[in-house]
Amino acid sequence: MISGFGTVGQGVAEVLLRRKEFLTGRYGAVPKVVCVMDSKTVTKDPEGLDLAQIVKRKQETRSVGEERYTDSLEVLDSVDYDLLIEVTPTDIKTGGVGLKNITHAFECGKDVITVNKGPLALEFSRLIGLARENGCKFRFEGTVGGAMPIINLCHENLVGENIRSIRGIFNGTCNYILSKMDKGQPYEQALKEAQQLGYAETDPTNDVEGYDTAAKCVILANSVFHRDVSFKDVKITGISQITADAVAQAASHNMVIRLIGEVSDTKLEVSPRLIPAGHPLGISGTLNIAQIDADLAGPITINGRGAGKIETASAILSDLIAILDERHGHA
Amino acid sequence: MISGFGTVGQGVAEVLLRRKEFLTGRYGAVPKVVCVMDSKTVTKDPEGLDLAQIVKRKQETRSVGEERYTDSLEVLDSVDYDLLIEVTPTDIKTGGVGLKNITHAFECGKDVITVNKGPLALEFSRLIGLARENGCKFRFEGTVGGAMPIINLCHENLVGENIRSIRGIFNGTCNYILSKMDKGQPYEQALKEAQQLGYAETDPTNDVEGYDTAAKCVILANSVFHRDVSFKDVKITGISQITADAVAQAASHNMVIRLIGEVSDTKLEVSPRLIPAGHPLGISGTLNIAQIDADLAGPITINGRGAGKIETASAILSDLIAILDERHGHA
Repeated sequence: MISGFGTVGQGVAEVLLRRKEFLTGRYGAVPKVVCVMDSKTVTKDPEGLDLAQIVKRKQETRSVGEERYTDSLEVLDSVDYDLLIEVTPTDIKTGGVGLKNITHAFECGKDVITVNKGPLALEFSRLIGLARENGCKFRFEGTVGGAMPIINLCHENLVGENIRSIRGIFNGTCNYILSKMDKGQPYEQALKEAQQLGYAETDPTNDVEGYDTAAKCVILANSVFHRDVSFKDVKITGISQITADAVAQAASHNMVIRLIGEVSDTKLEVSPRLIPAGHPLGISGTLNIAQIDADLAGPITINGRGAGKIETASAILSDLIAILDERHGHA
Repeated sequence: MISGFGTVGQGVAEVLLRRKEFLTGRYGAVPKVVCVMDSKTVTKDPEGLDLAQIVKRKQETRSVGEERYTDSLEVLDSVDYDLLIEVTPTDIKTGGVGLKNITHAFECGKDVITVNKGPLALEFSRLIGLARENGCKFRFEGTVGGAMPIINLCHENLVGENIRSIRGIFNGTCNYILSKMDKGQPYEQALKEAQQLGYAETDPTNDVEGYDTAAKCVILANSVFHRDVSFKDVKITGISQITADAVAQAASHNMVIRLIGEVSDTKLEVSPRLIPAGHPLGISGTLNIAQIDADLAGPITINGRGAGKIETASAILSDLIAILDERHGHA
């Protein structure tokens, strides 16, 4: 069951098609997608939908199906599924339909994979508790850093470490703008260019005011540091007030300005910081990066693509394989 | 059962002691170490050894026990254990006692964790086959990149990716020397400094001729790219012939020279390469770094400490937890 069929949902369909052979080899068959819904319509087939056809239909008609629905929970109830891939758009204020869908799925004992930051940034502990009570698996690698492995990396490879802090760049849009400002562009012009390239939305508030980074920090604080915090607990400063002057001033000291999210047992903060040129966090362009400070392993730095249709879907694939492996008792 | 009690073996003991609470919480008890052997002596206790005492004894007397042995396989046979942590020194020519110990452990149905590169660089497919035939788990995260997660990252988080290539710096000693040469030091002086700091051995051949990097590339080629290659298949050029002139020449083009290992379906090569200044692979100092080119996720870069007592032991801890989780049916 896939809820949400925008860029990421279509990416998931495409990735499942591209990995047909791999999934068949590993599990005997590609997992059946029995239902896909976008914001208004739904299409179902208990025998498994033809994903290529649905992507085509969505692109041609802007709808996944001809059947319109009014209540997504009724759709969920009408389908026999065991895993929800929740990829509706992030709503950081209310959690949106994603929060409802995830809650409902857990209440019905279904596993969930999501890249929707809203529900997690607002009600992390409730959702984790609900998953646990109902014996459901819950994975959300793609919520932070897109294709850059970070959550599962900390939960699995680094599970024996005491992670002291994570600092990083978790928003490619801001980083693109700041990188352009390094080259002398004023903020407004850099933002406009980011919008023209599709990196920034028409209303860029969510990115440039640091809200998106803050949501990701909340998810890291809860999932890696086992804190019980939500979006309102983050100290947030965005980049919209950064002047060309400030950037030039930084450059004269061989520094760049980057929007850094920092999380630890006591910190939960998003703010523009001065980073020495050449420092890993001084990275340019749209990549995301995270520096993990682990007590035994020492510092570990990872970077990768923080967004993109196939890239984000690849994080969902990684979560899907982890869940299917557990179900199949794979090593 | 721990075979080998040099720096890494002692690091393992220390890490097990430091993670007593974590391991007890996760598994009900710290795994018992029933036997430790160094190159000449052995100490055993079926109820579990006092690791702190053994580290102390080793540091004071240079031996782990008073009982001398001649054949490590006889020692293995004399003990009731289920997991071998094999951390004897790497012997890249013959595989050394490590190869014998690992082979024997698999033949007796035991799981194995190792950071010993020799056996894997020489007889990877035989060992993997042996582990499979005997239903044994085999993990070796620490053989490549020390505390930098790479093998398990590719096997687990990125298992759904087609990894097209891995390029990286896998030897901190060479990178230290090359970084010093960037600052104008001649090779001989930089090497001497590395030796004084304990980064390079008295006989630095293994590092500076690229053999250590080559062994790691063989392990990646076999484990990540499912090739069937061994040490002799690597095209190797080391750094001992790099002149101050060559480094200066590179610098004049805004480049640095780094010893890069590259592995793909068709490549298996270690050589000094020109890297643009500011490029992630142009990293300075003793860190290791790997660039993974994945078809869905895109490029992922990770760096971390490639060596060190606790750092290497942290990779062993990560493997140990993965094996214990599987045994205990953990998520």
